[in-house]
Amino acid sequence: MPIRLTPREKQIAKKLADSKNISGSHSPSPAMLEKAGVTIQHDFCYLSNPYATELFLKYFKKDFRDAGKLHTLIEHYPSQNRALAEKLTKVAGISAEHIFVGNGASEIIQAVLQNLVGVKLLQSRRSLTPTKILVPVPTFSPYLEFVPKEVRVVKLQLHQKNSFRLNLNKLLAEVIKEKPDTVVIINPNNPDGGYLDASELQRLLYTLRKVETVIVDESFIHFATRRIESVGRLVEKYSNLIVVKSLSKDFGIAGLRLGYAVMSEKRVSALLERGYLWNVSGFGEYFLGLLSRKDFLKSYEMARLTAIRERDAFFRELSGINGIKVYPSKANMFLIKLLDGTKASDLMVRLLVRHGIYVRTCYDKVGLTGEFIRVASRTAGENEKFIQALKEALSF
Amino acid sequence: MPIRLTPREKQIAKKLADSKNISGSHSPSPAMLEKAGVTIQHDFCYLSNPYATELFLKYFKKDFRDAGKLHTLIEHYPSQNRALAEKLTKVAGISAEHIFVGNGASEIIQAVLQNLVGVKLLQSRRSLTPTKILVPVPTFSPYLEFVPKEVRVVKLQLHQKNSFRLNLNKLLAEVIKEKPDTVVIINPNNPDGGYLDASELQRLLYTLRKVETVIVDESFIHFATRRIESVGRLVEKYSNLIVVKSLSKDFGIAGLRLGYAVMSEKRVSALLERGYLWNVSGFGEYFLGLLSRKDFLKSYEMARLTAIRERDAFFRELSGINGIKVYPSKANMFLIKLLDGTKASDLMVRLLVRHGIYVRTCYDKVGLTGEFIRVASRTAGENEKFIQALKEALSF
Repeated sequence: MPIRLTPREKQIAKKLADSKNISGSHSPSPAMLEKAGVTIQHDFCYLSNPYATELFLKYFKKDFRDAGKLHTLIEHYPSQNRALAEKLTKVAGISAEHIFVGNGASEIIQAVLQNLVGVKLLQSRRSLTPTKILVPVPTFSPYLEFVPKEVRVVKLQLHQKNSFRLNLNKLLAEVIKEKPDTVVIINPNNPDGGYLDASELQRLLYTLRKVETVIVDESFIHFATRRIESVGRLVEKYSNLIVVKSLSKDFGIAGLRLGYAVMSEKRVSALLERGYLWNVSGFGEYFLGLLSRKDFLKSYEMARLTAIRERDAFFRELSGINGIKVYPSKANMFLIKLLDGTKASDLMVRLLVRHGIYVRTCYDKVGLTGEFIRVASRTAGENEKFIQALKEALSF
Repeated sequence: MPIRLTPREKQIAKKLADSKNISGSHSPSPAMLEKAGVTIQHDFCYLSNPYATELFLKYFKKDFRDAGKLHTLIEHYPSQNRALAEKLTKVAGISAEHIFVGNGASEIIQAVLQNLVGVKLLQSRRSLTPTKILVPVPTFSPYLEFVPKEVRVVKLQLHQKNSFRLNLNKLLAEVIKEKPDTVVIINPNNPDGGYLDASELQRLLYTLRKVETVIVDESFIHFATRRIESVGRLVEKYSNLIVVKSLSKDFGIAGLRLGYAVMSEKRVSALLERGYLWNVSGFGEYFLGLLSRKDFLKSYEMARLTAIRERDAFFRELSGINGIKVYPSKANMFLIKLLDGTKASDLMVRLLVRHGIYVRTCYDKVGLTGEFIRVASRTAGENEKFIQALKEALSF
């Protein structure tokens, strides 16, 4: 039987819907929720590794015990993009001239879509041939929202009946039919966690080698497999390839705004020339420094593997709950369909008010029909709390 | 008699010149200097108010004693642009829909020049009329470097013999002759600190009301006068006006990357639509929160007035030194011409090696001839050290 909200819950639902309107297609921030009178205790909306956040804080507190270091970091300009790229070579597995450092993946998506996509069109202004970008949906919304107006978006629907898995034959048929200049692949995909393994993706990249630009977003790839299977290094082989990587999720540092992309040297230079130069904060630079420290990387690897293990355990638990369908995921999140007629927004408010648990509704995700929520995998203890709360909510 | 470097100083000069090449037209960062084997003790290159940095650190240390607060800030996404703009209404003196928050003024300059300048050209791609931007030089280099390739830069030379003051009649004559779509005014100007007072600037804005875009950069305006004379509010009257404001300099927080711009609501929306949404870090958001706190603003005002007072005292001291000419400045910096034939880069290395004092050479500044250095005004104590060091260096 569907959830029915109490009058107080309805009032909160109304306030959240209003704040949602100013956040666009993203969740309202904790500050906005506080204004609506609710406090998050367990945030299953944010897709980040909580063990990695703890690890970062441990280093941060130790390293900034020296007040002089904090002073310097606040007062001075951080290094610029090319210097910061040097700090990422180890993690990215490629030389610095292929690396563009971003103020979060969202800046990278913005920079790439606004400056590198449909570039032929800008170069010869006499040409009125519209350029096209092919994006499988549902997906991370900036890949739809940040596309320049001059570029046409062609959506490739991922289907429920295939568990939202990307069908490569359909993708290729669409490429042949629509002739897009740009193809986007999110791997693992957000919000469903669908995943192409490295060999499938390599075959796909070979097939797409004549497409002007292929964007592969690997923001969730650290959660996918025990051995990380990035295709980043293939930019040396395929100059049309751009691999985007958020550092917020896997390293648990969304507040720092950090990400990077791997692409041809020429494209990195083009972005730097357009002024994406001084875009990382001092705290961001400090974090990038950690990525060259062996002890940090070793501890991070343990945090990463723990997150994978607990995600898999969470899936087994979720799969056993009646009234929902959960889709297999290689990201640190699950897309869940509510089968009993409950509205996703009602479940979200119920979990928030009664358990302080915050989940992502998906009614605003292009390409999703039906009633879906997206739930992050958190710590084992928090996941267990979620399971109990969800069972309680659905039994009403 | 000009300075002659020792062999060791020459070696360091060579290393710095190399690192300068990768920083473009900006000073090498402290990290780069460390690599060259020199440590900065007094940074007269960075244009920020040291008293404001101290004030921020006092609040930071107190507010983040609570480890939970730090945890939340690191783990969660900060609020997005529209929500952050609300926190700036008091300081900007205008409603939030006119405010665009930036990841440092450099992002704002990038965003404005790449997206709002020459916009007619992008809208009608058939048109091949080149658009033009008029920029007085010498100036802050991003106003030259971040201009899209399709837009022609017309430089208006500021002259030594007028102490680099902007001649309004010459500016207007150039506007009539060149018909630029965009005019840039930096007030106070960087690197010389030349200043137009509010009434002069208001008359100028009236005269330029038919120009498509007028950018006024007020990044140094907190140092100009005891009563801050911003023209930001005039965007309600002149929809062509964009006022750019770094928060790095006056508030001493360059490491946080923060700035804002005031412009028409339509233009703010255009930038947000292009994806400049999630561009401020959690630490940046924390700082913006301080700007609504009365106690912080009151202490800041004292820090600001102290900086003005000490800048004026520094000018009097500098003016008394033989062998240099110092130009009057309303910013927190002085442009200094070396009259004895000493190379600016030699003086920079000498001050760095012998006194740990770092100054900005200007040989790469478009529009500057002769031998110039730019020197920030720091604390009274540091300014005094600089005076002594400069006297010593020039007496050789």
